[in-house]
Amino acid sequence: MTLFKRLSTLAMALLLVQSTALADRPIREYRRAHEHEILKEFMELLAIPNVASDRENIRRNAAALVAMMQRRKLQPRLLEASDPAAPPAVYGEWKTPGATRTLIFYAHYDGQPTDPRNWTGTLPWEPQLRRAALEVGGRVVEPPRQNEAINSEWRLYGRSAADDKAGVMAILTAFDALIASGAKPTANIKFFFDGEEEAGSPHLAEILRLNKQLLQSDAWIICDGPVHQSGRKQVVFGVRGDTNVDVTVYGAKRPLHSGHYGNWAPNPALTLARLLGTMKDNSGRVTIAGWYDDIEPLGEAERRAIADAPQYDDTLRSQLGLARTEGSARSLLELINEPSLNINGMSSGDVGALARNVIPTTATAVLDLRLVKGIDHRRQVQRLIEHIRKQGFHVIDRDPSDEERQHHGLIATVTPRDGGYNAARTRMDLPISLAVVSAVQSTSEQPIVRLPTSGGSLPLAVITDNLATVTLTVPIANYDNNQHAENENLRLQNLWDGIETMAAVMTMK
Amino acid sequence: MTLFKRLSTLAMALLLVQSTALADRPIREYRRAHEHEILKEFMELLAIPNVASDRENIRRNAAALVAMMQRRKLQPRLLEASDPAAPPAVYGEWKTPGATRTLIFYAHYDGQPTDPRNWTGTLPWEPQLRRAALEVGGRVVEPPRQNEAINSEWRLYGRSAADDKAGVMAILTAFDALIASGAKPTANIKFFFDGEEEAGSPHLAEILRLNKQLLQSDAWIICDGPVHQSGRKQVVFGVRGDTNVDVTVYGAKRPLHSGHYGNWAPNPALTLARLLGTMKDNSGRVTIAGWYDDIEPLGEAERRAIADAPQYDDTLRSQLGLARTEGSARSLLELINEPSLNINGMSSGDVGALARNVIPTTATAVLDLRLVKGIDHRRQVQRLIEHIRKQGFHVIDRDPSDEERQHHGLIATVTPRDGGYNAARTRMDLPISLAVVSAVQSTSEQPIVRLPTSGGSLPLAVITDNLATVTLTVPIANYDNNQHAENENLRLQNLWDGIETMAAVMTMK
Repeated sequence: MTLFKRLSTLAMALLLVQSTALADRPIREYRRAHEHEILKEFMELLAIPNVASDRENIRRNAAALVAMMQRRKLQPRLLEASDPAAPPAVYGEWKTPGATRTLIFYAHYDGQPTDPRNWTGTLPWEPQLRRAALEVGGRVVEPPRQNEAINSEWRLYGRSAADDKAGVMAILTAFDALIASGAKPTANIKFFFDGEEEAGSPHLAEILRLNKQLLQSDAWIICDGPVHQSGRKQVVFGVRGDTNVDVTVYGAKRPLHSGHYGNWAPNPALTLARLLGTMKDNSGRVTIAGWYDDIEPLGEAERRAIADAPQYDDTLRSQLGLARTEGSARSLLELINEPSLNINGMSSGDVGALARNVIPTTATAVLDLRLVKGIDHRRQVQRLIEHIRKQGFHVIDRDPSDEERQHHGLIATVTPRDGGYNAARTRMDLPISLAVVSAVQSTSEQPIVRLPTSGGSLPLAVITDNLATVTLTVPIANYDNNQHAENENLRLQNLWDGIETMAAVMTMK
Repeated sequence: MTLFKRLSTLAMALLLVQSTALADRPIREYRRAHEHEILKEFMELLAIPNVASDRENIRRNAAALVAMMQRRKLQPRLLEASDPAAPPAVYGEWKTPGATRTLIFYAHYDGQPTDPRNWTGTLPWEPQLRRAALEVGGRVVEPPRQNEAINSEWRLYGRSAADDKAGVMAILTAFDALIASGAKPTANIKFFFDGEEEAGSPHLAEILRLNKQLLQSDAWIICDGPVHQSGRKQVVFGVRGDTNVDVTVYGAKRPLHSGHYGNWAPNPALTLARLLGTMKDNSGRVTIAGWYDDIEPLGEAERRAIADAPQYDDTLRSQLGLARTEGSARSLLELINEPSLNINGMSSGDVGALARNVIPTTATAVLDLRLVKGIDHRRQVQRLIEHIRKQGFHVIDRDPSDEERQHHGLIATVTPRDGGYNAARTRMDLPISLAVVSAVQSTSEQPIVRLPTSGGSLPLAVITDNLATVTLTVPIANYDNNQHAENENLRLQNLWDGIETMAAVMTMK
């Protein structure tokens, strides 16, 4: 252990001793007395389907949030984009007399699309409690009556139970608890609930620009994402950027019988497989030229924070059933500070009962490009396109014409999806950064984790590019929440803890 | 042109002159007078869903066939496997007094599974006529009333319109026409309609063994598959063998957020892509060790027939929109005499609107292995498994246990589907082979094509392994019938021609 690291550990220990004393007991007492109501309000919100493209239902969510905020006297209003089809952001505010600081609490109320057929036993928008996680056999339990105890290890299953209606609930309930317990927020508090984060927040920049005055603040507190895999609370100072790209390659113009034409007509599934295979080496390193250029290096405080963070990779590998991980023995925390390339989905023809003896006409992959600070998302997509060209493909952005088919043996349609954005990172040594760390630490007996960047993405660069402010992310969900997948769930203790965390930030010095 | 080839061409020309004179006019007259009834009976049969695993509907098909054959006095009966869930074969017979030869006419009444959502404008089991092929804008036309003319270029759209209820209809209608026109079959005729061919006919061997006496014959005439791409009629002396294999590879035990775990947790879609990429080289040649071993070479007559066949590759490439084909400039007809490896389907996560930012837990491909005479299907699967092992995979035949996951970085589940079978080929110089060629030629003004083997597969080895007989395939469908895919269709003229072809074989010398 270097002297440097020893001092840093000592500083954290002191912070820990100081903070634990400050833990906010009235908030916990309020929550204990109101668990049934909190859960009821939460489950009602989860019952409203919330895919951003589902225009009617997303408006129902916004209306529900307005009603919830009206009950709290937060003067809610919808912030609309110029496109009436875009989901609105839901805004509210609370003025604290004499406060010199303004904080905006951000969460998003939309969720990832999901196929209900992939869920086990429950459905995405019919939230249900289980006694434990599904993976360990947790059975469904009826919503508890007022006189029945609620076990904090229970899990709430439903789309956005974790990502990110949990954030909405933690923020609004923390506010309830503060007001009810007579504790006063130390800052002016603004609430901003995004309705299209999972679609890449394509209208967020416009909404911010249209409401610059209204949204003045010293910092945005982003309540989204999971706590550390070890269960420790964390403050995250940045997020990876993100952009999704559809790649389609082509075979014959019509599906062909695999017997009559097999080993003569090219199979697009194989063409795609071979193309994807060129994008990473055996260790998982992306082989696309320039992929790791432009990375803005981490500072001293950031490197120290990574070194301080618990090393959890072996436990994770064991829990996930992985004998090997990518990156040649480098840790997850290190790798998160590099750009990635992931295949979100890949499809050609059918598998399972619908499989049949055909040569499919197309094969498609959806690629997910994560970016770190310094890399521009448009430039990264361009590198991908150049790479595909180098493999001999004629790259276009729509279906090929007959003439193109006659001239090019390999054709790929490459189309970035809307809503790509860059990474963002707030310096860890700013006064407001230190204040938030201290506030979150005050609610936890374990040292909290400070991460320069999260692996996940949020359009935080959109906020800092459009408004003079910084962002600090304070996640609350359990890390095994199945975020973005089927069987998404929230461990109730994480919501209870999250309420305390949010209240601490609302009352921080 | 070699002397040999010149003589062979001369022989075909003589056969042509001789045969055209024999063309069976009464059959054509019968068909012209009965087109509306034929079409009505056909469309009623096509309206019954016919996936082999759809137990209830497959029985409805069998019952419909029994009724159709009772009307023709063919003494129909169901030939059942010992498994009551298996589709029955439908059998019928016609004794011709004094006949010394017995022919069994084979077709199958089941069809490939299909997703109705992929069909354009019509549905798989709601047959409809179009004025032309969909690809050239053929509009749906109402079934013609009795006084309305039927255009023979119309197409009938529906699952099995071509593959292979067209075979059933051609055989039964040819028989009608013979009886009605007073022409007598020259052989005893047996009818055998398979109900599970598209599922690989897993119970056919048992049904044949249980009915050895009943099914004695000199030859099976297999009415299945398309005519030559040039539109010429053909007689096919063999079929490729076929076996399907499911291959699944694994990532983490639960779906992971692609941001939080991307470039640390291995992505099974990429693992599968890389694995599939090792199976063929750039020219499309299979790189699996031993893949081309054991091939039984073609004889003199077979090589001559291939040389005689029309070279159609350029036209096909142009029609299909393919600038390149596999096999380094070798022709489709040549390549069909080699074993192939095709990806029928490939899937991991989701694409399109359901795509989301996850690392999927598994990736699956369904492989279709076509075999030629000499190669055993079990041995070919074993070669595939060995190849996957050589790429570093632990190969198993069920989902991996937790312990296996901890020990093996790469795991593949490889499971051959039921119903694999070997290739079969009948010698082209047998007397019955020459008789069938002559009969089919008698119905066509163009020289027919004789192929040593079809690219497609039928369980013909099961027939010749279990019964002392030979098989000869006489296909009738248009080659662009979208067999096995959505929008399957039959050009009516192909059915009209097919009736004449079947009648010619029933009355051959």
